[in-house]
Amino acid sequence: MTEATSPRLELPKLLVQQAVEATLAEDLGLAGDITTDPIIAADAQGEAAIVAREPGVIAGLDLAEAAFKTLDPEARFTRVVNDGGKVETYDIIAKVMGRTRALLTAERTALNFFCHLSGIATLTSAYVAKVQGTTARIACTRKTTPGLRAFEKFAVRCGGGVNHRFGLYDAVLVKDNHIAAAGGIEAALRLLRARSSHLVKIEVEVDTLAQLEEALRFEVDAVLLDNMDTATLKKAVGLTNGRALMEASGGVSLETVAGIAATGVDLISVGALTHSPRSLDSSLDWSAR
Amino acid sequence: MTEATSPRLELPKLLVQQAVEATLAEDLGLAGDITTDPIIAADAQGEAAIVAREPGVIAGLDLAEAAFKTLDPEARFTRVVNDGGKVETYDIIAKVMGRTRALLTAERTALNFFCHLSGIATLTSAYVAKVQGTTARIACTRKTTPGLRAFEKFAVRCGGGVNHRFGLYDAVLVKDNHIAAAGGIEAALRLLRARSSHLVKIEVEVDTLAQLEEALRFEVDAVLLDNMDTATLKKAVGLTNGRALMEASGGVSLETVAGIAATGVDLISVGALTHSPRSLDSSLDWSAR
Amino acid sequence: MTEATSPRLELPKLLVQQAVEATLAEDLGLAGDITTDPIIAADAQGEAAIVAREPGVIAGLDLAEAAFKTLDPEARFTRVVNDGGKVETYDIIAKVMGRTRALLTAERTALNFFCHLSGIATLTSAYVAKVQGTTARIACTRKTTPGLRAFEKFAVRCGGGVNHRFGLYDAVLVKDNHIAAAGGIEAALRLLRARSSHLVKIEVEVDTLAQLEEALRFEVDAVLLDNMDTATLKKAVGLTNGRALMEASGGVSLETVAGIAATGVDLISVGALTHSPRSLDSSLDWSAR
Amino acid sequence: MTEATSPRLELPKLLVQQAVEATLAEDLGLAGDITTDPIIAADAQGEAAIVAREPGVIAGLDLAEAAFKTLDPEARFTRVVNDGGKVETYDIIAKVMGRTRALLTAERTALNFFCHLSGIATLTSAYVAKVQGTTARIACTRKTTPGLRAFEKFAVRCGGGVNHRFGLYDAVLVKDNHIAAAGGIEAALRLLRARSSHLVKIEVEVDTLAQLEEALRFEVDAVLLDNMDTATLKKAVGLTNGRALMEASGGVSLETVAGIAATGVDLISVGALTHSPRSLDSSLDWSAR
Amino acid sequence: MTEATSPRLELPKLLVQQAVEATLAEDLGLAGDITTDPIIAADAQGEAAIVAREPGVIAGLDLAEAAFKTLDPEARFTRVVNDGGKVETYDIIAKVMGRTRALLTAERTALNFFCHLSGIATLTSAYVAKVQGTTARIACTRKTTPGLRAFEKFAVRCGGGVNHRFGLYDAVLVKDNHIAAAGGIEAALRLLRARSSHLVKIEVEVDTLAQLEEALRFEVDAVLLDNMDTATLKKAVGLTNGRALMEASGGVSLETVAGIAATGVDLISVGALTHSPRSLDSSLDWSAR
Amino acid sequence: MTEATSPRLELPKLLVQQAVEATLAEDLGLAGDITTDPIIAADAQGEAAIVAREPGVIAGLDLAEAAFKTLDPEARFTRVVNDGGKVETYDIIAKVMGRTRALLTAERTALNFFCHLSGIATLTSAYVAKVQGTTARIACTRKTTPGLRAFEKFAVRCGGGVNHRFGLYDAVLVKDNHIAAAGGIEAALRLLRARSSHLVKIEVEVDTLAQLEEALRFEVDAVLLDNMDTATLKKAVGLTNGRALMEASGGVSLETVAGIAATGVDLISVGALTHSPRSLDSSLDWSAR
Repeated sequence: MTEATSPRLELPKLLVQQAVEATLAEDLGLAGDITTDPIIAADAQGEAAIVAREPGVIAGLDLAEAAFKTLDPEARFTRVVNDGGKVETYDIIAKVMGRTRALLTAERTALNFFCHLSGIATLTSAYVAKVQGTTARIACTRKTTPGLRAFEKFAVRCGGGVNHRFGLYDAVLVKDNHIAAAGGIEAALRLLRARSSHLVKIEVEVDTLAQLEEALRFEVDAVLLDNMDTATLKKAVGLTNGRALMEASGGVSLETVAGIAATGVDLISVGALTHSPRSLDSSLDWSAR
Repeated sequence: MTEATSPRLELPKLLVQQAVEATLAEDLGLAGDITTDPIIAADAQGEAAIVAREPGVIAGLDLAEAAFKTLDPEARFTRVVNDGGKVETYDIIAKVMGRTRALLTAERTALNFFCHLSGIATLTSAYVAKVQGTTARIACTRKTTPGLRAFEKFAVRCGGGVNHRFGLYDAVLVKDNHIAAAGGIEAALRLLRARSSHLVKIEVEVDTLAQLEEALRFEVDAVLLDNMDTATLKKAVGLTNGRALMEASGGVSLETVAGIAATGVDLISVGALTHSPRSLDSSLDWSAR
Repeated sequence: MTEATSPRLELPKLLVQQAVEATLAEDLGLAGDITTDPIIAADAQGEAAIVAREPGVIAGLDLAEAAFKTLDPEARFTRVVNDGGKVETYDIIAKVMGRTRALLTAERTALNFFCHLSGIATLTSAYVAKVQGTTARIACTRKTTPGLRAFEKFAVRCGGGVNHRFGLYDAVLVKDNHIAAAGGIEAALRLLRARSSHLVKIEVEVDTLAQLEEALRFEVDAVLLDNMDTATLKKAVGLTNGRALMEASGGVSLETVAGIAATGVDLISVGALTHSPRSLDSSLDWSAR
Repeated sequence: MTEATSPRLELPKLLVQQAVEATLAEDLGLAGDITTDPIIAADAQGEAAIVAREPGVIAGLDLAEAAFKTLDPEARFTRVVNDGGKVETYDIIAKVMGRTRALLTAERTALNFFCHLSGIATLTSAYVAKVQGTTARIACTRKTTPGLRAFEKFAVRCGGGVNHRFGLYDAVLVKDNHIAAAGGIEAALRLLRARSSHLVKIEVEVDTLAQLEEALRFEVDAVLLDNMDTATLKKAVGLTNGRALMEASGGVSLETVAGIAATGVDLISVGALTHSPRSLDSSLDWSAR
Repeated sequence: MTEATSPRLELPKLLVQQAVEATLAEDLGLAGDITTDPIIAADAQGEAAIVAREPGVIAGLDLAEAAFKTLDPEARFTRVVNDGGKVETYDIIAKVMGRTRALLTAERTALNFFCHLSGIATLTSAYVAKVQGTTARIACTRKTTPGLRAFEKFAVRCGGGVNHRFGLYDAVLVKDNHIAAAGGIEAALRLLRARSSHLVKIEVEVDTLAQLEEALRFEVDAVLLDNMDTATLKKAVGLTNGRALMEASGGVSLETVAGIAATGVDLISVGALTHSPRSLDSSLDWSAR
Repeated sequence: MTEATSPRLELPKLLVQQAVEATLAEDLGLAGDITTDPIIAADAQGEAAIVAREPGVIAGLDLAEAAFKTLDPEARFTRVVNDGGKVETYDIIAKVMGRTRALLTAERTALNFFCHLSGIATLTSAYVAKVQGTTARIACTRKTTPGLRAFEKFAVRCGGGVNHRFGLYDAVLVKDNHIAAAGGIEAALRLLRARSSHLVKIEVEVDTLAQLEEALRFEVDAVLLDNMDTATLKKAVGLTNGRALMEASGGVSLETVAGIAATGVDLISVGALTHSPRSLDSSLDWSAR
């Protein structure tokens, strides 16, 4: 994983802190941790480690660290593996030392972020592995969990994938309903050409090769080939011949992705990366005291 | 599904509105929907339906409705099925009419909430079906997605499950680390008895029958039997003999859950309900115009 | 006061900081402290002490400390007495050193929190003193000041009292209107049994011994005996015979509380603890310079 | 009460809505009203009245109304008495009709605001009654409950009192510590004259007649006479002879206030109005169904 | 102005409401409008019009409308001219009817938004007029007023200009410092190619023709020609020959812009549009009553 | 500039931090700085200086500093000139050292605040210079940029001006519409006298000398002479003869202000200071590495 050694995009710090504080508030309510506080002395110190319970690719250590440090600013958090790194079962991922109360109370918040995001990174890396040797890259979609888009997009990158647009605001993606409402691809693209910022790319969703040809006449930046079989995808790639970036979408699974990649498309977008990841099994293990 | 006809807990309206506004903001950024606005006339009206693409149990229509109505307060949203209801592939779940721009722009926010929560309800209902005929109920845990706990707990109820505590603040759950830090179950429970509110229940996690017996001596309200095999669970149920509520946890899957339920435990808690659900496949289909 | 030496529940730090920042903003507006800033040099250092002007039990030092430190992160705040401790007139409670501007500007915010919460702790301790030697504990209610519930519940504990439920969400309390709407205690409890989480306790308000007997048939966790005279309370205690926790409520004052406690009830809830406390008189006294 | 018929200052609507939403959130948490929802049908309608349980002057109906309407926008809220109006025991103050769930769930939030603010209005009106026939007006201070200043200042006006400055930002009040730090009244006032906005009034706290004379030399707008006995106050009034507004402060109680007013001061400020009011006893009574 | 009849991008409604509420809060504080409330009866109705005091292009009516309607939801706001429309001195732009208090209190908030944004639209339209007949479009930059970017970008479009990127997140713009840090244009672009999303455009700032040639070798989407004289710009345009979008920047004024446009560049970016606009003089005129 | 050595009002720290975080969020979105992060190593350190590109008076260094330190808490920010200080072209104003990423990413936020506020301070100081030697002071109005009032008011003070009221809440200013609605100046002032706080000053806008005389009969604190020519202003000053503070407003420009000041008015209010300032040209220059 080169991600660990050559980080690309940083998670905006303010987003991390804001999300962690909101999630701690969700777990603590007004009464706080009514199990830990009556039992654990306020000044007791503890030490624990985040340990993998299955193999995977990790993401989200910034959020785990922030969870502990928000409750104990003096806590020390040491990473053994970095975001984007691969881990095996029983690998120690990070260690944390600090007030025992803070560690116990922040544990679930830290893990809820970390296991969810590492699940996304791990699933992404599985798809990436399947298309190795092709020109295709694996991309996520806007089918993200409400409130977590920045983090989930980051996790996809940790897994070796690339990000599609972040929202409705940073790229144009013309879908069938837009085309129908505008009265055809040409009409839609004419309006968009006239009214879009020059720094925004335009992608059009097409269902058939006929639509593809229509779209290419307007020099779009990218084409989303929706639910085409691999034979059609191959024809689409040949027909386009480099005039636009080719993105395949729909019907993508770990079983089908290699075949799709072999058609020569540039990108394969997979909604499941963010809407249906399995959490990476990991836990906070305490050192004996 | 009796949930649809006899609703139990309402989703707090303020939480719904707050979450929807934050998620729309996440998707719209500062520039808004740069595909829709240049193409669709501001006053165009449209009609669409949320349609199931696979069988399942639904949850989260309040959030979908709020997404559309926040962008078009005049929009009409009609439910064909209620939260907690079962749907088959191609079933129409709800219809929405309103400004086309609002519908197109809010679509992803509405579906991201709805498909995620319906995925949880559907997975829960699968577990519930497996334990039918036993005394065991299916419960979720605190392994929820950051920021979505209220909604995910609700989705579990829609699927026929029950909620465990909502956070660290509304019930005591003594785990191994608490016991170790306190110097034993007895010491921990003594402190909790003295310092807990009289309206708070106390549950203790035990790994062995010996620990179970120690816990029962302190009249705890519930016992979490962690990772016990079914033979041991059965012994635990017999040994407890109704003195405390019995919750099984760990190693629970759709394959194992019926066997666990057959031991006579009262509750089986399943982290996967909220940490690893698959999104329910559904889409917004537009009426021809 | 054992509270001072063996703290039970910590005030969630994020709530403290949030409340202090909001209250400073309320006092500073956009223009800030237009008396202090023109007069006091920006780098002047000062020293002051929070001093008791009457005897009492204190609560809220975390909030006072946060008020000063928010305006001067370098300020030093030293506690002479801890939350839950008793003070006499002229006792120094805490000392603070830092930028004079910060101290003068934060003074009112710090004291408004501290005097209000100490007033609650002091009033609570007066009730607790009256019931010493009985089995009754003094509990607060949900009649708290809007926005301050977490802090006021904490102050009650500092005064030796116990907390009732924190909100509508963490325990069930069935009142007369619920019973009327449901069509009787039995109907209400049947619905609640079926639909409540297993980790939630259920309390029922009863006005008569007949109602009490009906409630006890459903194995409720607690019973709120509303406005009963001591003779009836005594009968209720005998009749219940340990089958549920007995809470007396209504008509409780410093004059009547001992008599109520003598009936053998477990809890006496007092709304006045949080809705009508007198602020504890204390001031910020400056050291000569 | 002329307040009811000739309202002076409106409570800023946005503050009301914001405070009510935060307080409902405090009471509802994530799970909502776990007593009401399982028992009361979602569409059941109810009717109730806010009824006085003791005589007093009311304040805060806007907040009560907003509490109910936030949970049921269709609810109807009818005022029988307006803010600033006097009520006797058993008087109906306002009626509310709407979804039974909304009414039951919002009840405590509505009353917690209303009873607290009416307690302030009632206490203020008691002080105002004592000084009737004199030139003195009763003023509140900055000793308000954190987060509620706007509402408490409003309640004081409902009770017939006047507001002192709202915060550190809207008037200058020079206290002993400012004077000490500046090196005397003259030095402090020179700096303030040079650096204050022309639309800001300046008040100085004086402890002695000598200080009063020094302050008057600088044409201050008002003088706060701190803890002077009535003989000294009388001298101060004579000595000032209309050159500045005279405010008495310290040692004010319902017993002493008439004597202080008789000295001829313009204002008597009473911290207790907002830091130690007793909640006005009132309740939500349900109509038979 | 075609903007008025064929609106392009809508101002996200949630941003409008949020900004208006924050600005009303800034103006109202805790005490509200202490001039209007004592004078104007609570139920008095009034009527007023926003009138131009100089010629210009308008923008921001959504914000003005929201200001009035937030304080009086029943207010009626009628547009005579739409955003993007031209007005002459004394033209009525919009009319508003509603509670007199609401109109007087919201007046400044409404105008502060409207006059500021109309100033930007007007300045933009002056630049646009100067380049008419050329291929150049006028673009804004990220030199916007903190907190108002979405609205200011919108105002630029109302004036006939186009938007550059909205933030650091939606397009890549490589500046001299990035190039220096990366060790040259080639190194920087190699990293960006490998690490950027496929839907993001890349622009590079160049100071010389040599740099331009280096940048073009990497097929960048756009080139920012910084502070070049018109002769050099012309050479740059010829040299590029359509391979990238050409943006001129630096030294642009109403005097120089036509000459720059004549060089054949595609875009001219003008920081002054948003960092130094003059407010458009307009006022709220009241109808006689 | 005495402002630099004898600071008057501090910018409330919490407002600074809040505004800076919101503005960074506006610029960073969810994806962050997609130019800097792929190019610059996470641990690279850099050094840069804020340099003036034209002469002026500066304001807003607190905000610039906070922008850098929010993204790199270890950054060092050194002021060469203080707020209120004069600078010449090429003067170094402040230096900053820290993580290169943080510096590049925060640059625009820091400058957008600093250049805008310095523009206001510079424009104010130009007006102040014109009235030197007269008794008139230059004041700003409520025509401020939404969201930035506290900072813009501060910048006016840095430029040597004084602040008018901060909002609708801290002083009374009776305008023509209020007078019309109340039925004359006398009626309006009677209501205000009865209903205003004793610590609030009252100013009345008058258009004619007849109105002025009417206002003076009510001992108002200040009079706003709206759009009077200098001859009339002079008469007004004579007629008033010190009985109220005289403020001239309307038709004020750098050309006319000296003549207005010569009439003897106390204050000249200039809306343009805050609604139409030109940004002060300054830049962040990087040290060679």
